[in-house]
Amino acid sequence: MNTTTIPQSEFEERIKQFQLNIKKEGLDACLVHGTESDTAHVRYLSEYWPVFEAAGVFVPTEGEPVLLVGPESELYASKRSFFKNIERVQEYRESAEPDNPGMTFMSFDKLVKKYIPKGLKKIGLVGSAITSLPVYWALKEQLPSMELVKADMTLWPLRYVKTENELACMRKAFEISELAIEAILNEIKPGMTELQVVGIAQREIYKHGGEYEGHSLYCFCGESTNNAISRPTHNKIVRNVVIQLNIGARVSGYCSSVGLPFSIGPLLERKKRLVEFGLKAHEKTTEMLRAGISAGSVVKDYESWVKKQGFAQYLLYGPCHSIGMMEVERPWMESTSDYLLQENMTFQIDTFFYENDYGLRWENGVIIKEGGVDKMSSKFAKYIEI
Amino acid sequence: MNTTTIPQSEFEERIKQFQLNIKKEGLDACLVHGTESDTAHVRYLSEYWPVFEAAGVFVPTEGEPVLLVGPESELYASKRSFFKNIERVQEYRESAEPDNPGMTFMSFDKLVKKYIPKGLKKIGLVGSAITSLPVYWALKEQLPSMELVKADMTLWPLRYVKTENELACMRKAFEISELAIEAILNEIKPGMTELQVVGIAQREIYKHGGEYEGHSLYCFCGESTNNAISRPTHNKIVRNVVIQLNIGARVSGYCSSVGLPFSIGPLLERKKRLVEFGLKAHEKTTEMLRAGISAGSVVKDYESWVKKQGFAQYLLYGPCHSIGMMEVERPWMESTSDYLLQENMTFQIDTFFYENDYGLRWENGVIIKEGGVDKMSSKFAKYIEI
Repeated sequence: MNTTTIPQSEFEERIKQFQLNIKKEGLDACLVHGTESDTAHVRYLSEYWPVFEAAGVFVPTEGEPVLLVGPESELYASKRSFFKNIERVQEYRESAEPDNPGMTFMSFDKLVKKYIPKGLKKIGLVGSAITSLPVYWALKEQLPSMELVKADMTLWPLRYVKTENELACMRKAFEISELAIEAILNEIKPGMTELQVVGIAQREIYKHGGEYEGHSLYCFCGESTNNAISRPTHNKIVRNVVIQLNIGARVSGYCSSVGLPFSIGPLLERKKRLVEFGLKAHEKTTEMLRAGISAGSVVKDYESWVKKQGFAQYLLYGPCHSIGMMEVERPWMESTSDYLLQENMTFQIDTFFYENDYGLRWENGVIIKEGGVDKMSSKFAKYIEI
Repeated sequence: MNTTTIPQSEFEERIKQFQLNIKKEGLDACLVHGTESDTAHVRYLSEYWPVFEAAGVFVPTEGEPVLLVGPESELYASKRSFFKNIERVQEYRESAEPDNPGMTFMSFDKLVKKYIPKGLKKIGLVGSAITSLPVYWALKEQLPSMELVKADMTLWPLRYVKTENELACMRKAFEISELAIEAILNEIKPGMTELQVVGIAQREIYKHGGEYEGHSLYCFCGESTNNAISRPTHNKIVRNVVIQLNIGARVSGYCSSVGLPFSIGPLLERKKRLVEFGLKAHEKTTEMLRAGISAGSVVKDYESWVKKQGFAQYLLYGPCHSIGMMEVERPWMESTSDYLLQENMTFQIDTFFYENDYGLRWENGVIIKEGGVDKMSSKFAKYIEI
């Protein structure tokens, strides 16, 4: 059974590094936001994993951080997180906004008085892209003279290069993805629905020590395989078309995703050709990655290689994005990316091609090393006709 | 297999009613927000179910509504929703904020020019509790002379009283919950983890026609049963303690949740007594509900009944909340609630008691009728020792 976890000392080290970044940025504190579906920053700092209600982590440049939770989460938070300071703040309540008669709450002005007695001038928002209006409005109203700035980059870079403990969680999550795909390939039959196939994966994820899906699971059959983002439906699995799986597990907050197109019975020749070319492009990307090269150049080299091979018109997407506590996280790998790959960054090789009536996406995870990559998954990087 | 769905005509009726409310409120349009985990308002209006990226629905007082999606969701949105107008707006991108080089986006000022050529003065935010700062900042910057107000109550009341189609989805979701619980009670063994038990429920949800969990599933064993909100863990199932299940499925966007405490082997007498009293309180609440009575009075009568029975010190929570497209939605039933229950409102009877070392929560769904309720679940409203 999985017991892969991040030790408390590593959380404490994260807080320390984050505080250095907050100070360096000239801020007095940061307020980090997390929700049920976008929980990574909050969990990275506190191990707290919000559900129903949102959550915040308030981190002054010095001293203890504070976990901010909604009216119903205090007991859960005290058991889940190692934080000594937990405060109930009404702005983190459920979006259906209960009144909570009789309950008392911490306000942001009192929070500052309690934890930064000398006061503060400038606070940074982290997770600003998901920070909710009630939290923002309360900050503005309760601390009117305080300056409020976006400060996402005080935290994000800490998550780029993974530690050995983080890598162990990710490896385990990829192992579970492969087990789930193996079960699907053994059990899938024409006439099942896409959602029933997802159910096989869900069963396997929990059986093998996962704590949740790593992302919303994909099983698409036929035309909808050309959607970059989608949801599985009650549509039935049929023969002789592309069936797309993207199956991700979660272990101690860390995600995997393994993706492959396959079919029951042979595909039309033109489809088989593109599926096989996709796999070749996937392998090409894998070979390009190593510590020290520029992320932007990988994208440009990949795109020009695809063009040279004559497949540019089928290219939707790719070739890589970072993976960790979210299935898609920073740093992105885009033609505009100007950073160099570093050892122990973790990327998802994400190879997408499509035509009008189908698409395909090969996905596997790698750890960047000197001179190449360590593969976190590879078992299903092959052409499969059942 | 489940094919319970909401017909397009019903979505169109929703939009029409919403537009009347927007007009009545003196607004020119509303902007509705949805995220992967808080999707209800957006799905209620459009059937679109966001994943990875957020989404918005822009509804002018007259004419067609517009679905706003992130850079990767356009094709998916065009297949999933019946909306004719879909626009790509960068503020709905993933929270890891890609650059999307080479892509073009709709801005809010151009959106207004295109869909409300005469311009607008006042826009209402719906789902304001989850609306993100990038959307808010873009509105303020791109439409500086426009007045921006919270307008959640232009939409919420439309969702209070359910239609026959909505009730059919909910009944189906409750049926799936009961099937999942039945499987758990047949298969659970000491030594399994809480998460493995959740895996049984996940398997059954998809097998029987569910499209997702109705909420984050609960299986807690022992002490953590006293958490109002929590997450299952790798802790092992043991004998002679309270094991708590709350299992919810989702059908066409509509949720269920069935909750029961049970044990493997007998409980200590004091625990059994409170579990049984909880069930009595659960039944008491069920009897109190009917069309025409005041929501606030149900809460006050329940609390005074519990006090009279001598159990007030164990009362954490309850006795009811509305359920529909979210497992907890408006209207809340609190002592401050001043509305009357109406026929075809749907409530979750949610009965929670706790002591220091355990807790218990009975949950079942009902439809409010003249003179009483229709139960959507009741099979597991009984004391169970395996």
